[in-house]
Amino acid sequence: MGCVVALAGQVGGAKLADGLYRLRREALSVIVNTADDYEHLGLAFSPDIDTMLYTLAGIAAAGAGWEPEGESHAVHAMVRRLGGPDRPVLGDRSLAAALLRSDGLADDRRLTEITLAFCRHLGIAARVLPMSDDRVRTHVLTDEGAVTFHDYFAHLGCEPPVRGFQYAGASAARISDEVMDALHARDLEAVVICPANPYHAIAPMLEIEGMRTLLRRSGAPVIAVTPIIGGRALRGSAGKMMRELGRELSARSIAGEYRRLIDGFVLDSDDALLVESVRSLGMEAIAVPTVMRSVDDRVVLAQEVLDFAASIRLRREAEVQ
Amino acid sequence: MGCVVALAGQVGGAKLADGLYRLRREALSVIVNTADDYEHLGLAFSPDIDTMLYTLAGIAAAGAGWEPEGESHAVHAMVRRLGGPDRPVLGDRSLAAALLRSDGLADDRRLTEITLAFCRHLGIAARVLPMSDDRVRTHVLTDEGAVTFHDYFAHLGCEPPVRGFQYAGASAARISDEVMDALHARDLEAVVICPANPYHAIAPMLEIEGMRTLLRRSGAPVIAVTPIIGGRALRGSAGKMMRELGRELSARSIAGEYRRLIDGFVLDSDDALLVESVRSLGMEAIAVPTVMRSVDDRVVLAQEVLDFAASIRLRREAEVQ
Repeated sequence: MGCVVALAGQVGGAKLADGLYRLRREALSVIVNTADDYEHLGLAFSPDIDTMLYTLAGIAAAGAGWEPEGESHAVHAMVRRLGGPDRPVLGDRSLAAALLRSDGLADDRRLTEITLAFCRHLGIAARVLPMSDDRVRTHVLTDEGAVTFHDYFAHLGCEPPVRGFQYAGASAARISDEVMDALHARDLEAVVICPANPYHAIAPMLEIEGMRTLLRRSGAPVIAVTPIIGGRALRGSAGKMMRELGRELSARSIAGEYRRLIDGFVLDSDDALLVESVRSLGMEAIAVPTVMRSVDDRVVLAQEVLDFAASIRLRREAEVQ
Repeated sequence: MGCVVALAGQVGGAKLADGLYRLRREALSVIVNTADDYEHLGLAFSPDIDTMLYTLAGIAAAGAGWEPEGESHAVHAMVRRLGGPDRPVLGDRSLAAALLRSDGLADDRRLTEITLAFCRHLGIAARVLPMSDDRVRTHVLTDEGAVTFHDYFAHLGCEPPVRGFQYAGASAARISDEVMDALHARDLEAVVICPANPYHAIAPMLEIEGMRTLLRRSGAPVIAVTPIIGGRALRGSAGKMMRELGRELSARSIAGEYRRLIDGFVLDSDDALLVESVRSLGMEAIAVPTVMRSVDDRVVLAQEVLDFAASIRLRREAEVQ
């Protein structure tokens, strides 16, 4: 067994990463979206990183994977009482990572170092790697102008129609040594793009200068797992965004977004009829159950993805001979 | 009835200020020590200001007046889990004021403005005024060198013998317009130095350039209430510090610290025998119950103090005529 690199954001991405983690432990590196990061009350919040940390550490809340289990809101209640802002709601436990992260950044530590220290303290054997130590922010283009994804989500309730996206800072952001090392591993067996919103969770990572080339040249099959099942997003606003952007609301449309980057695409069993159509985009495709309700589901899907990657590697080797 | 200005720090100071507040409401201004303020995880903590706010708002914990009632420690538990520092312990509700204060200061708002906004939101009709908007820090001189009072308290457990104090920044700190206005009120009836550690809660305020003169020239009697009863401090480390500084451990010794500043000194009934001895220092003195176990105790003591000030004013007026 070799190394695996996952690209992930959001709760769905963390779930599949957790499945991969349970199969590969320290051989897994997860590159995580930081373009939805935001500052609030002077603190640096990294929702996708923290979701990943809580999930891999096994302390994510069952119904709310973006926060630790047993979350409370005493700080927020007092912030409100003292006249502070109502949104976003600050969870007590969730504040801890933001406090330590802000303090570390102010002390000139890199986001990657800070995140790896969190992994160590939480007993996570895998490496959770921010996509970059430089600041990248997704802006949602609306009829009223551009807003950060955080404002779009937390203050506008994802309501204004989406006209497009901009990834501020992406072209200038550097890929960290840790991400480089993970993608240069000689025994890399797969690069997995986890199920997550393609526009604000996955695209920012791919927009970083050099990232697409690095993924293509890793030598391992690049596999993406659909976040769209039966014509709708399992969670979040991906479906709404696709409609407003004039995209066909289907898993095939997602596969199209990753064309020329991925070698294989994993559809849900419900979309088995789309397999041929996705193959016509010039990639391999399979259809398996992708809904992860239990931890077992995560592991089963992760194994399907790794098997799929192995089959692509075998075919390639056969073709070469 | 006129205006009252109190100088206060710590829990004892807040209790007497609360008694004065219940008698004078919006006619009370409290100047609060900020020389024990500290930074932790990038946040600005002002323990004496927050103790005062919680006390006047009626939300201070019964047995722990420095924090809001119902305090919890979810943030701290998670900070520890993520590898953060163990000391000082961060209370969830207590964090809110620190978060908003830090954010306000980063936004170039003055500490006084931020504090008055807290008063407004907490429904406090009195004015809680930081002693200065400039940074002043009490340093405790020990055999191993100088440490901030916060480090002395939170990290050294107040153990090293005290050789003296320094008030870094006090001579350069400016008195705010709000403190000036409070002390220039035409109908000022009393300036009350509340019971608190004379070295790190009261002295820093008196060390600010011009503060002593301003108090003397306010025209109102300046009254101090003893923090020492029957040869020991009711709470905190004042007794230990006095011993180590070679001071006589008595209320008279405290009166001596305030000599040439105060017009009257309030002893506890237990120290009634010291009244004459304090008077020999060149000030008025009375002995009344000063232990504030209940809210009623606070009001009764506050009334005694105001009556004492009134008697001094009457005597002065009689002497002038």
